[in-house]
Amino acid sequence: MAQRGFFITFEGSEGCGKTTQIQRLASRLERENHKVLVTREPGGTDIGEEIKHLLQFSRVGATMTAETELLLFAASRAQLVRERVEPALREGAIVLSDRFLDSTTVYQGVARRLDAAAVKMMNDFAVGGCRPDLTFVLDLDPRLARERMLCRTRSGKGPADRMEQQPLDFYDAVRDGYLALAAAESARVRVIEASHPIEAIEDEVWRTVGERLSSSL
Amino acid sequence: MAQRGFFITFEGSEGCGKTTQIQRLASRLERENHKVLVTREPGGTDIGEEIKHLLQFSRVGATMTAETELLLFAASRAQLVRERVEPALREGAIVLSDRFLDSTTVYQGVARRLDAAAVKMMNDFAVGGCRPDLTFVLDLDPRLARERMLCRTRSGKGPADRMEQQPLDFYDAVRDGYLALAAAESARVRVIEASHPIEAIEDEVWRTVGERLSSSL
Repeated sequence: MAQRGFFITFEGSEGCGKTTQIQRLASRLERENHKVLVTREPGGTDIGEEIKHLLQFSRVGATMTAETELLLFAASRAQLVRERVEPALREGAIVLSDRFLDSTTVYQGVARRLDAAAVKMMNDFAVGGCRPDLTFVLDLDPRLARERMLCRTRSGKGPADRMEQQPLDFYDAVRDGYLALAAAESARVRVIEASHPIEAIEDEVWRTVGERLSSSL
Repeated sequence: MAQRGFFITFEGSEGCGKTTQIQRLASRLERENHKVLVTREPGGTDIGEEIKHLLQFSRVGATMTAETELLLFAASRAQLVRERVEPALREGAIVLSDRFLDSTTVYQGVARRLDAAAVKMMNDFAVGGCRPDLTFVLDLDPRLARERMLCRTRSGKGPADRMEQQPLDFYDAVRDGYLALAAAESARVRVIEASHPIEAIEDEVWRTVGERLSSSL
């Protein structure tokens, strides 16, 4: 039986460069013959993608309550963990997820101000003990992040979804939430300055992953 | 400001006659000039109907985990309570719901054997304090219920959905779950023998509702 794999998550506001960094890390890991699973939240499974669609593009999205939103994110996560993440980890793979548990803690808990105990309880139920070994928070000033998102929308790379239409102070709260989380769980969570050049961030991610893997695999 | 309304839920296995009884009760209440809202779970809102669709007819339904299912039911309920039930109750309406909270307790908790504390906690979060004033459990032997469902499918009144394809012992567990709930909450939950003639059940429901309304409205 293979040794249990390693679970890495990437967190941060929209526009912080998570997707680029995950692609680069996955390529480097694969070149070193690691088995890699790249996934994302919400989504990552057929059921999760349908939930993501409901969360992001539903005509009725504007009327969705904060509680409904939290439960839908948790449903997508519960499916992802059991259908994809856990089986891959059992086979010894390195799993890279674009968002996970911490997104709920920060977005629904901090920014929407739902009861923190309820959010934590929902998180625990959804993941059933499957937690990241390492988490990168790509930290970026919300004003810069918004510039990047507008740029992306203009270039036709993606529509402005429901979450991207929030006011700037929502993203300030999200950023503060991520930084507070990193301070509280410094052994797991590593903050990276996302305004640095892509290659510099890639190298920092690579160095950190290398250190953690050599001490755990 | 209107007096707070009255919230009545109908529970029981598929094929027990909930929908017929709700329609009849709604008509009688409306004839007596009550404001009535009829709703159902999962569903009852635009968002909830999309969730219901995902739960029942998704191609990928067979692979859905029990945790995902529970969270999707809770998401539909959270939306229903805040968008429709609570506003109607505030306006003094009598709300009739085809399934609610107890369906999750029984189906996910008892029959799927998820942790009872987790199910209760999810229920509490989803409804946020909005609980039925009166609940009817239409009790029927699962073999009779199955006959009714097959009959309904043959006559083209509805497809056999995911839940209707469960084995018979699943429905035995559901029935036991409802009866245990009624025993534990006898002040709220009233069990009615669903093999009786439709008119007899209608009269029993009407008498019970009349007694409760006269003592509460």
